[in-house]
Amino acid sequence: MERCRLVFSGSGGQGVITAAIILAEAAVLYENLMAVQSQVYGPAARGGATRTDVIISESNINYPKVIQPNVLVCLTQEAYNKFYPIIRPGGLLITDNRFVKIQRKVDAQQKELPMYRRVMESIGKPIVFNICMLGAVVGLTKLVKPESIMEVLKERIPQGFLKMNREALDLGLQMAESITN
Amino acid sequence: MERCRLVFSGSGGQGVITAAIILAEAAVLYENLMAVQSQVYGPAARGGATRTDVIISESNINYPKVIQPNVLVCLTQEAYNKFYPIIRPGGLLITDNRFVKIQRKVDAQQKELPMYRRVMESIGKPIVFNICMLGAVVGLTKLVKPESIMEVLKERIPQGFLKMNREALDLGLQMAESITN
Repeated sequence: MERCRLVFSGSGGQGVITAAIILAEAAVLYENLMAVQSQVYGPAARGGATRTDVIISESNINYPKVIQPNVLVCLTQEAYNKFYPIIRPGGLLITDNRFVKIQRKVDAQQKELPMYRRVMESIGKPIVFNICMLGAVVGLTKLVKPESIMEVLKERIPQGFLKMNREALDLGLQMAESITN
Repeated sequence: MERCRLVFSGSGGQGVITAAIILAEAAVLYENLMAVQSQVYGPAARGGATRTDVIISESNINYPKVIQPNVLVCLTQEAYNKFYPIIRPGGLLITDNRFVKIQRKVDAQQKELPMYRRVMESIGKPIVFNICMLGAVVGLTKLVKPESIMEVLKERIPQGFLKMNREALDLGLQMAESITN
């Protein structure tokens, strides 16, 4: 496996940091990989775009910050406007098609997904938007197995909320599959 | 304010990562500071000691990993055994006196606090152990105001759990005060 550098971005409350931690834990606990996960909070965090970085690798990771992500997820227009220039050429850019209008062509595979809309239609709870996003990321990148994500969720989430999270993860996985097939 | 580098360590499930994120958010959102928060997951994370790093500063932070923390918190013996050598000379070492037996004298102010015991006696819920720890850290370092921590908790925690978190934070603050006076 090549080293994968991911940046998830959005606004506070969309759960991008939680999604990043879940992905890092899944990689380390269930896939025998190494992971580093970090966030920088600066003036931009006060009402601006939140960014969280994850690096997943088979070998030791020394520098924990991502310079050019292979995978960039933007869940708000502000996050997209701020971060689209950093994507690694040929990388994967995933945006939510309700919150982000793509304005420029970048050298990346651009995937505009109806994640928020599908979560609201099928589950009706915006709180699992981030888990749907994680499903799409895992489906498109095959970084970790969906079951590894579920194992982490089982540890972190009260029993009564697991079904809803499974549904959100599956929505994201289905979206990824319908694009790649 | 001088730049402060903190490492919180313990085992999975003790909530050290959550505590670090809450502290970083409090610093940035309510105290006009910059913060970086990160965790490295490696083989040690699989059943070993969890470590999370926070840097808080008035100016930009370039390198997000902590080499020598000014403040080191260890909530398990394994975390203490692994991380005590990295403390900055003259720094602050906070351990829980139920889980950690201090075996060596290090060049640091060593505070062995009955955090877990007091949380269980007064509140009876181990889930707020990390918030009590955060109260002790804030009380001893004055890095941010307790009210800034509470503002973050209000954003993150369902209404019904706020009182319990306030109590845990206050327990930590009281422990810090009883030591410093």
